[in-house]
Amino acid sequence: MKFVKIPSIAITRLSIYVRSLELLDKKGIEVVSSGRLADLCGINPAQIRKDLAYFGQFGVRGVGYYVKELLFEIKKILGLDKEWRLGLVGVGNLGTALLKHTQFLDTGYTFVAAFDRKPERIGTKIGGIEVAPVEAMNRLVKEKGVEIGLIAVSSEWAQAAADMLVKAGVRGIMNFAPVHLECPRHRFIENVDFSLKLDALCYRLTTGRAV
Amino acid sequence: MKFVKIPSIAITRLSIYVRSLELLDKKGIEVVSSGRLADLCGINPAQIRKDLAYFGQFGVRGVGYYVKELLFEIKKILGLDKEWRLGLVGVGNLGTALLKHTQFLDTGYTFVAAFDRKPERIGTKIGGIEVAPVEAMNRLVKEKGVEIGLIAVSSEWAQAAADMLVKAGVRGIMNFAPVHLECPRHRFIENVDFSLKLDALCYRLTTGRAV
Repeated sequence: MKFVKIPSIAITRLSIYVRSLELLDKKGIEVVSSGRLADLCGINPAQIRKDLAYFGQFGVRGVGYYVKELLFEIKKILGLDKEWRLGLVGVGNLGTALLKHTQFLDTGYTFVAAFDRKPERIGTKIGGIEVAPVEAMNRLVKEKGVEIGLIAVSSEWAQAAADMLVKAGVRGIMNFAPVHLECPRHRFIENVDFSLKLDALCYRLTTGRAV
Repeated sequence: MKFVKIPSIAITRLSIYVRSLELLDKKGIEVVSSGRLADLCGINPAQIRKDLAYFGQFGVRGVGYYVKELLFEIKKILGLDKEWRLGLVGVGNLGTALLKHTQFLDTGYTFVAAFDRKPERIGTKIGGIEVAPVEAMNRLVKEKGVEIGLIAVSSEWAQAAADMLVKAGVRGIMNFAPVHLECPRHRFIENVDFSLKLDALCYRLTTGRAV
């Protein structure tokens, strides 16, 4: 793999290719034309070729892509050729939805732990995972091998949750709270903020322009 | 407002500025230095100046930004100087979380309708909204003035939900199902796919590089 700077949007498109290729693979389809793959992904064929070119030579001229082979290669590039172990902080409505989000299970992610502050939630089972008190985080992160922490608490508790995850040794964080979090440099954080997407949609509806 | 092409990432940053400015405004803070605003947003001051320059001249040299004034201007740019009416399709765990997501209420969004296919869900009240059958969508979208539809159904039903929303006259769609949706050209769609963000995080964890 070449070490060039890859735009983050290209990484997101690689994930979209993975989703479509998995769908084709499940249907038993072995070869896909670049045009068909482009339609499935909603991305134009030239963009797909350009994105893949960052990582090497894929596809056969006049034939298309071998589904299993391309899937294998892209998953390797993204680091999805292993199973990632997730820990959730906050089992309110959103946290519960995430634990039950079966799509994760299809794509190499497994919840192995869930934490909450509220006594009435401790010990309940959601999606097969028993909710533990936040005080058990240090121990359980190590025992269960949690690699990525998902934060689904309210904005006011999100920074405390991030600090606890970092202290427990979690390297990657997905933050669902609509607030900016401070995080040490050697840790990675991704923010999922619905309302930012809604704002972008409103801008497009207001101006009538795609952005 | 000048009609230049604004990168979509700049629009997202404008939303982030709105969040931080609202926080400052609530605390009664009238003026903020560009450095302080940058810290709050986790974005560097030069980037903030560049983003705002797309839309005009903001801030006073040596003083900073007037909080209320900048908030008002950015909200106008984004089309957030009005209340947007939301309709939800699918009141499973995720849909329920969205209906109860109080952050929306703070930022100019209101749910006015919710729909589901499942008979046992019809008539229940979630977050003050009574769940209606999908057959009532055409009528309720008009009656309640739904402008944006949120799709929180499973992947296999997402396209049908989008088609129904479009038919009912909804112009903007937020899709939470992890699948690519077809949509007429004059409608706008934003996808919120958690697993794409997770994939990006795994790529960063695997390569050790920020993207």
